[in-house]
Amino acid sequence: MMFYYDHKIRVRYGETDKMGVVYHGSYPLYYEEARTEMLRSIGLSYVELERRGIMMPVREMHVRYIAPARYDDLLTVHVEIRQMPGARIVFHYRILNQRKALINEAELTLVFVNMETSRPCRIPQDFTEALEPYFR
Amino acid sequence: MMFYYDHKIRVRYGETDKMGVVYHGSYPLYYEEARTEMLRSIGLSYVELERRGIMMPVREMHVRYIAPARYDDLLTVHVEIRQMPGARIVFHYRILNQRKALINEAELTLVFVNMETSRPCRIPQDFTEALEPYFR
Amino acid sequence: MMFYYDHKIRVRYGETDKMGVVYHGSYPLYYEEARTEMLRSIGLSYVELERRGIMMPVREMHVRYIAPARYDDLLTVHVEIRQMPGARIVFHYRILNQRKALINEAELTLVFVNMETSRPCRIPQDFTEALEPYFR
Amino acid sequence: MMFYYDHKIRVRYGETDKMGVVYHGSYPLYYEEARTEMLRSIGLSYVELERRGIMMPVREMHVRYIAPARYDDLLTVHVEIRQMPGARIVFHYRILNQRKALINEAELTLVFVNMETSRPCRIPQDFTEALEPYFR
Repeated sequence: MMFYYDHKIRVRYGETDKMGVVYHGSYPLYYEEARTEMLRSIGLSYVELERRGIMMPVREMHVRYIAPARYDDLLTVHVEIRQMPGARIVFHYRILNQRKALINEAELTLVFVNMETSRPCRIPQDFTEALEPYFR
Repeated sequence: MMFYYDHKIRVRYGETDKMGVVYHGSYPLYYEEARTEMLRSIGLSYVELERRGIMMPVREMHVRYIAPARYDDLLTVHVEIRQMPGARIVFHYRILNQRKALINEAELTLVFVNMETSRPCRIPQDFTEALEPYFR
Repeated sequence: MMFYYDHKIRVRYGETDKMGVVYHGSYPLYYEEARTEMLRSIGLSYVELERRGIMMPVREMHVRYIAPARYDDLLTVHVEIRQMPGARIVFHYRILNQRKALINEAELTLVFVNMETSRPCRIPQDFTEALEPYFR
Repeated sequence: MMFYYDHKIRVRYGETDKMGVVYHGSYPLYYEEARTEMLRSIGLSYVELERRGIMMPVREMHVRYIAPARYDDLLTVHVEIRQMPGARIVFHYRILNQRKALINEAELTLVFVNMETSRPCRIPQDFTEALEPYFR
C-alpha cells in the first residue's frame, strides 16, 4: 500500500566540499532528481505539469545526515509515497551508498500550486489516476 | 538567555530556479553563511577550528518554506542559539525579506567532530568561553 | 576611459570541493554578483531591467584559474567595462585574495535580449546614459 | 586520431534559473561529469588517481553559450581529447539537446598536480597507456 522507486545517482566532484564529502546542501538536488524519475516511471511528467500551469514547490524538508557520501559514490536514492496525496504530497527518502550503508533520510512535503493565481490547488487528475493503483 | 545574530544576504541569480524564486536547495548556503558570521561576531573562526582538527558537520536540518524569496532580495537571516551547546549545537533560523515578511524557518543541528578520528568530540573551550556569557 | 568596480565576496563552505579549494564551477556566481553590484553602483538595476522585459544572458565566458581560492577567503572581485557597450557588453574580471594575490581572471560577454521575442535588442537608454560618462 | 565520448545528462530543476533555462554557471558540472565518465570508459578512475596523490585542477575554461538548455532536457555531452596529453590535458565539449541542436561548446584545460607538493607533475603512466591507442 505504497509507491516506491529506486534511483541511482553518481556523486559529482562539485557536490563535495572541503570536508571531502558531499556538502549537506547538495542533497536537495538528489531528492529532486529521484522524485522526478519516480513520477516519470508511472508516466507523469513534471515539466508537462508546469506547462499546464501547475507547479509543485517544496513546503517542508526534514533531513537526517547519518553518514557521509563521497565523490564518485554510486548512491541509491529510495523514494516512497506512503499515502495517497491530496493537496499535498509527501516523499520519504532513504539514501544508501554502494556498500548498502544507509547514509541519509529525508521527508519532503510538496504542494500543488496554480501558477496563475499562486494559490494551492487540488492534485491533477492524471496524478490521481496514476497513483491510485498503489493505494488500493 | 540566548545568543542571536542578524545577517544580510543578497539573493544571487544563480540561486533562483525556473519558478522565478530561490531554489529550495539554495537555502543551506544562507544558513551556513549566517552561522559563520554569527560565530565570527564573537571571535570564533570556523576556518581556524578546522585548522585545529575539529569540524562541524550538519546532522539534522529541518526547513519550512513559508513564502518565496526572489532574485536580488536583501534577506535578513536571523540566527539564534537558544541553549548552551554541548556535544551538539542547534541553530534556529528565521529569514525575512526586505518587506519584513517571514519567508523561511529552519533548525540545523551540528556536531563537533575530531577530524583525525572522525568521531564526535566535546565543544572546544574557546567556544564555551565565548558563548557562556549569553546563557548566564 | 573605462568603468571599473571592486566588490568583496566571502567564500562559502558549500562553494569549495574536496580539493579543499573553491570549485572551479563556483566562480560564475562571483562574476554575477560583482557585475550586479557594479551596475547598481551607477543606479542600474538588473532586476528592474528584467521587469521591463529585457534580460542579459551570458554568451561567452573565458576563465583562467591562476591560484586557488579557499574557504572563508575575502576575495576582491575587480570588474571592468573597457568599451562602451552596444548590443553586447563585455565584463573583464580579476580576482584577488586578502593577501593581494591574483588568483583568477575572466572575460564574460553578455547580450541584451528582448524577453518576448527572445531576440537580441539594443542596449537600453538608461544603460547608455549611466555608462557614457565613463567613456568620454 | 582522437578519443571521444558521448555522455547523457538530464537537466535538474535546481540547475535552472529564473530565465527558465539552465544557469550558465551550471555547465561546469556537466563538463566534469562527462569527462569523468569518459575516463571511466577506458578504465581510468579519477577518484583512484586522487587516492594515489594526484589531482587534476582546471586551469582554463572557455565556454560559448549558443542556445539555452531547459529543465528536463536530456543533453548529450560530446567530449573529445584531440591530442595525446602531456603535463596538461585539453577536453573539447559540444552539448546537444534531444532535438540534436548544438547548444554549447567549451574547452577545458586541466593539469596533473602532485597533492603533496602542490606542483604540476607528469601524466601518470596508466593514463598514457590507456590513451595511447587513440593517438597512433
